[in-house]
Amino acid sequence: MRRSITGFSNPTVKALRALRDKKHRRRERRFLAEGLRLLTEARESGILPEQLVMASGRDPHDLLDALESDVLAAGGEVIETSEEVLAKITGKDNPQTVAGVFAEFDTSLQQVDRDCAPIWLVAQALRDPGNLGTLLRTGDAVGAGGLILIDDCADPFSVEAVRASMGAIFTQRVAQAGWDDFIAWLRSGTGQLVAASLRDALPYRGAPYAAPCFILVGNESRGLPEAYERACDLRVTMPMRGRADSLNAAVAGAVLAYEVLASIEG
Amino acid sequence: MRRSITGFSNPTVKALRALRDKKHRRRERRFLAEGLRLLTEARESGILPEQLVMASGRDPHDLLDALESDVLAAGGEVIETSEEVLAKITGKDNPQTVAGVFAEFDTSLQQVDRDCAPIWLVAQALRDPGNLGTLLRTGDAVGAGGLILIDDCADPFSVEAVRASMGAIFTQRVAQAGWDDFIAWLRSGTGQLVAASLRDALPYRGAPYAAPCFILVGNESRGLPEAYERACDLRVTMPMRGRADSLNAAVAGAVLAYEVLASIEG
Repeated sequence: MRRSITGFSNPTVKALRALRDKKHRRRERRFLAEGLRLLTEARESGILPEQLVMASGRDPHDLLDALESDVLAAGGEVIETSEEVLAKITGKDNPQTVAGVFAEFDTSLQQVDRDCAPIWLVAQALRDPGNLGTLLRTGDAVGAGGLILIDDCADPFSVEAVRASMGAIFTQRVAQAGWDDFIAWLRSGTGQLVAASLRDALPYRGAPYAAPCFILVGNESRGLPEAYERACDLRVTMPMRGRADSLNAAVAGAVLAYEVLASIEG
Repeated sequence: MRRSITGFSNPTVKALRALRDKKHRRRERRFLAEGLRLLTEARESGILPEQLVMASGRDPHDLLDALESDVLAAGGEVIETSEEVLAKITGKDNPQTVAGVFAEFDTSLQQVDRDCAPIWLVAQALRDPGNLGTLLRTGDAVGAGGLILIDDCADPFSVEAVRASMGAIFTQRVAQAGWDDFIAWLRSGTGQLVAASLRDALPYRGAPYAAPCFILVGNESRGLPEAYERACDLRVTMPMRGRADSLNAAVAGAVLAYEVLASIEG
């Protein structure tokens, strides 16, 4: 179905705009992704938006045409609107010329097939949606299977996390679980849990990593709870040559993930 | 000097608050840093704020006392105010209990002593202040000398960059220059320029890094201009196992910096 929207006060505009708000997003179980690049990433991963919102007056583009016809063929809705209305929906002054509304994915641990990838990223109480999206993007780059979010993390479906993921929200598995459920699930199969830590740790280079390797990073200000570190199979530490004793959480995860990748590919 | 401020409309409050705005900050050549941790980092690096703003009703703290007496001894100003006013100055709902106003540093290339460190980070047209601050933080961790900002980058003295640096703004050198000036300066001494690149590149692991090694990362969406990559002594590439062809700029810089660190420490 195809339709046009012109007014700012149109109920569809309000509903789309509300998806930037977590409470509303939770209720609707749908999320917003912006930009042709992200939407094409989704399409090529076999995921189409339920609604595609496009600014009129945009430049023609083959990938946009492909997206439009796929969405229509799948029974989705294509909405044409003004740049100004699109800006209002996305909350950006210079909006991309296209945005999509997607159904949230199943984020239960049960849908995670640990054997499909040698690396998994795990974040505990990660509060910053930019860090969360960056971990997804890094996971894609290192060939990880996905990102498991432990305890109270930022929302992976927030506009900021989706944007920072650069499309990896569509290619990486995302799971959410409490610590106890995660550990029970992890120990029900194979899997090595590795923490970046300062306690009782081996140098991160040359440590005995084994696939499937679950790389655990902690909260931005508090790091990992000690009990969680103790539950890990391996604690590794990165050099800290300066005054600080920690790295940004997304950076620590990336440095470690690239080391694990090099190690298991030998 | 010590004084109290109670009203929101006090001219000092307005002046401090205005430091969150780049234009104003440029004119004043002063910047804001928040939180006892950052301010203590500064103090221990021998840098004191011209003004120290503290919320009344805060918990006593030895480090805060030390800061206060050092600022007063150095002829600076200590301002007591309410939590509400401090929140207004810092623009945060839950402000830290202390903030400081610092004079901007000299960011000319001439103050950079390249031989004082084996690694330098270089960012070109980096637009995100969070990425900029994260690169500073990573630089501190790997024992880099500092961060050189090429072309039109985010402001290293913005509240966001200072916050993301976690204090490294006070421990790392920061320089700003156009590309031509940078290259002329670089080639006037020793120094290897290394780019993360997909063009004509060696695998990043085991590449022949040499100190002082200048690690160059590019703009978040466009990467490095081809001419800049060609001017590098070494182009290296990191594995990309997924659909994406790039990493977050701060992540790419960190993965590469840790590899260079391991390489030159042999």
